[in-house]
Amino acid sequence: MTTVLSRTEVYALLALSLACFGVLINTFQGDGEPLIASVAFSGLAFSSCYALIRWLGDAFMRRGFKGKDMCKLKQTEIPETMGAVCAMVYLLVLVMFIPWPFYKDIVAATSGGGNRDVMKELEEVDTGRFLHRFPHSKLASYLSAIISLQSIVLLGIGDDLFDIRWRHKLFIPAISAIPMLIVYFVDFGVTQVVVPTPLRAYLGELVDLGWLYYIYMALLSIFSANSINILAGINGIEVAQSLVIAGLIVVNDAFYLVFTPYPHPATDSHLFSLYLLLPFIGVSLALLKHNWYPARVFVGDTYCYFAGMVFAVDGILGHFSKTLVLVLLPQGFNFVYSAPQLFHLVPCPRHRLPHFNARTGLLEPSRVDFKRPLARPIAESLKLLHRLRLLDVETDEAGVVVSSSNFTIINLWLVWFGPMREDRLALGLLGFQAAVGGLGLFIRHRMALLIFTQDNL
Amino acid sequence: MTTVLSRTEVYALLALSLACFGVLINTFQGDGEPLIASVAFSGLAFSSCYALIRWLGDAFMRRGFKGKDMCKLKQTEIPETMGAVCAMVYLLVLVMFIPWPFYKDIVAATSGGGNRDVMKELEEVDTGRFLHRFPHSKLASYLSAIISLQSIVLLGIGDDLFDIRWRHKLFIPAISAIPMLIVYFVDFGVTQVVVPTPLRAYLGELVDLGWLYYIYMALLSIFSANSINILAGINGIEVAQSLVIAGLIVVNDAFYLVFTPYPHPATDSHLFSLYLLLPFIGVSLALLKHNWYPARVFVGDTYCYFAGMVFAVDGILGHFSKTLVLVLLPQGFNFVYSAPQLFHLVPCPRHRLPHFNARTGLLEPSRVDFKRPLARPIAESLKLLHRLRLLDVETDEAGVVVSSSNFTIINLWLVWFGPMREDRLALGLLGFQAAVGGLGLFIRHRMALLIFTQDNL
Repeated sequence: MTTVLSRTEVYALLALSLACFGVLINTFQGDGEPLIASVAFSGLAFSSCYALIRWLGDAFMRRGFKGKDMCKLKQTEIPETMGAVCAMVYLLVLVMFIPWPFYKDIVAATSGGGNRDVMKELEEVDTGRFLHRFPHSKLASYLSAIISLQSIVLLGIGDDLFDIRWRHKLFIPAISAIPMLIVYFVDFGVTQVVVPTPLRAYLGELVDLGWLYYIYMALLSIFSANSINILAGINGIEVAQSLVIAGLIVVNDAFYLVFTPYPHPATDSHLFSLYLLLPFIGVSLALLKHNWYPARVFVGDTYCYFAGMVFAVDGILGHFSKTLVLVLLPQGFNFVYSAPQLFHLVPCPRHRLPHFNARTGLLEPSRVDFKRPLARPIAESLKLLHRLRLLDVETDEAGVVVSSSNFTIINLWLVWFGPMREDRLALGLLGFQAAVGGLGLFIRHRMALLIFTQDNL
Repeated sequence: MTTVLSRTEVYALLALSLACFGVLINTFQGDGEPLIASVAFSGLAFSSCYALIRWLGDAFMRRGFKGKDMCKLKQTEIPETMGAVCAMVYLLVLVMFIPWPFYKDIVAATSGGGNRDVMKELEEVDTGRFLHRFPHSKLASYLSAIISLQSIVLLGIGDDLFDIRWRHKLFIPAISAIPMLIVYFVDFGVTQVVVPTPLRAYLGELVDLGWLYYIYMALLSIFSANSINILAGINGIEVAQSLVIAGLIVVNDAFYLVFTPYPHPATDSHLFSLYLLLPFIGVSLALLKHNWYPARVFVGDTYCYFAGMVFAVDGILGHFSKTLVLVLLPQGFNFVYSAPQLFHLVPCPRHRLPHFNARTGLLEPSRVDFKRPLARPIAESLKLLHRLRLLDVETDEAGVVVSSSNFTIINLWLVWFGPMREDRLALGLLGFQAAVGGLGLFIRHRMALLIFTQDNL
């Protein structure tokens, strides 16, 4: 990869940056619309991330952050861990953005001298604030989100540096979630959940989960971050799947902002969600441009953790964690499908990425050979999966299972549709993911009334 | 360095941890004294940092974080950048500590349902809160401190990884200060300073510095972080000088807490300062144990930046930035003294650490040879410094300056007191630093009334 930006790239990035900068300056006049500022910041995030990935590639390689692309004919080394660059740009943008949603509210609610005029603030609650302005108390949540994301970047870089063991990796998102959970505890502390209608006879309308709610939030972080980390291995898939997820959540947020009468308790939460997601989309697009087939950089575990944590933070602080789980269904399926190998019920090779056939230039499902015969129930289960077309199992004449395709959704796709080029494989998976996620959102809003007394849309 | 803890170490660390843990549990009863909890957390920080430094040393070396000790007879390689471990432990402790100073206040000021009962809070202000409880609005400051510190750790690790150029390094603390400054802007925004009495005729009692105040805070961060980074090079000096500074600030804070009648506006600020400093002392002691002569680990630039930023954050958010400058006087002197070499008025060799004499085992001042004759005014200035005993200059028969000792306080000490062993050199410098800092604090409180109408003690 050349570290120099071409003339066209320089002009395009400069034009974009100037336009975004102009928009930002304009937000100072009038009410200073934070949502517009957020879009402008996302544009700036895109262009600076784009340029930095190019400028820093060589330095990363010199310091040992590099890897070989196993699915190519010519396996040249390319920079690794470039997700760290994205994450740094993203965090800086989140910080710079703070005055837009939080400043004006303070000025409006202050009688001067830096003391918050509390009575005035109460009055504002009655008369309604400007759309897109946050009450000051949201600042602590926002800052705690930044701390959690910074933590996962630090730990993710540690993982990329030191190759932490699998069983330790699992806890990286849990540790990073601590700042968010502690501020949630101190700041908000609501751990009651609405009970679905069929269960109300037994549990009442609300049930207080207490500390179980914190466990739930920590588990959600672990799931979100790791599920992206294991649906990985072919060019562009990590970033592109994150962009699909982010896109689906943005659509969901937009529904709330457009169709909900203002003021509504959900508006603030979904604005909060957008403010976190738009810059994420900016930096991810810049990374995808360099990571899409044929990849010129790798993203590293850092990016996967970071992206997963952005979603977890977004879902938890935006109070739509159940919707988040719906959007993550394909990742969830991949996790469940991978479980037999992850937990060593079935042998797990070091790499499970598809096999590159150098003659055809296409990817084929990679396989695991069973040197020792499998236990009877496991072998029978594999045969059943084969009949259900959920696995490709090979048996010898005696009917003994001798090999199978590896247990990832990526290999399964190749089992279903045959060998294909790397980018077509990625596109197929992304289309599938978008369809499942979109369906999930549709069902969530159409079916909510079946199990709850009201949809909060 | 062995990565295994000896049996004695294991027992000692376990005993300390258990004791601290017991104290923490006890703070749940009664009012839950945050200051006591902070001390207990600092003990836990010490023991976990101590163990982690040992356990991770090998992994750091394998990944290329290693260096040779130039001032030893046998130059074995030892782990580098261990300050990053300290910083991570410190940040986690700061996060875990949040509920102690912030939780009870919320519960007391809430009428249930998670809505802050604002009237009650106002009433609390009149009747006084418990000592050591913070109003909720301080939480944003505290979180912004964590973000700034996390940023400098991220950038510091980047520096240790990529060896960033000198002129870029300067800005690392400035970038890291942004989160703190932005939250200061949004949250507090007081940029007025008290004018010294002699100037009041011209400027009035208070002068509003406006955005200049933010420049001042950014410069203070740059100065604080870099001044520690350039007073470095011999075993233990980076950590030990930071401990002396932290100790002096703690003494200053304790004065306020003990001698000021409560409630007093300064009490909260100085408690805030202690909460940030005590865990810092914990992790630094653990590091010093391994970095003191003969060093078994190096601390890396990460530690120097991190330590300097802890002081900057502490001084700015604790509202005692002028006192901080007093305590940093020796570092300031070293900076000014180094300036001729840093800004290339005089040639600057790559390393300026003292010269190790393998025959005697002692350190001697390292020297810079002037291959080309110096400009007349510079040569004369050097000779003047020589006469003032502030430099050791060598001239040839014609009176031309041919070499001088390097421009650091460390070399100057060796010029003054002759060759000595590395640890005696460090001890001497630390004693000097403690004396100057202590004198500074004394003068600050005795003389404040000469230029201000009141000392805020």
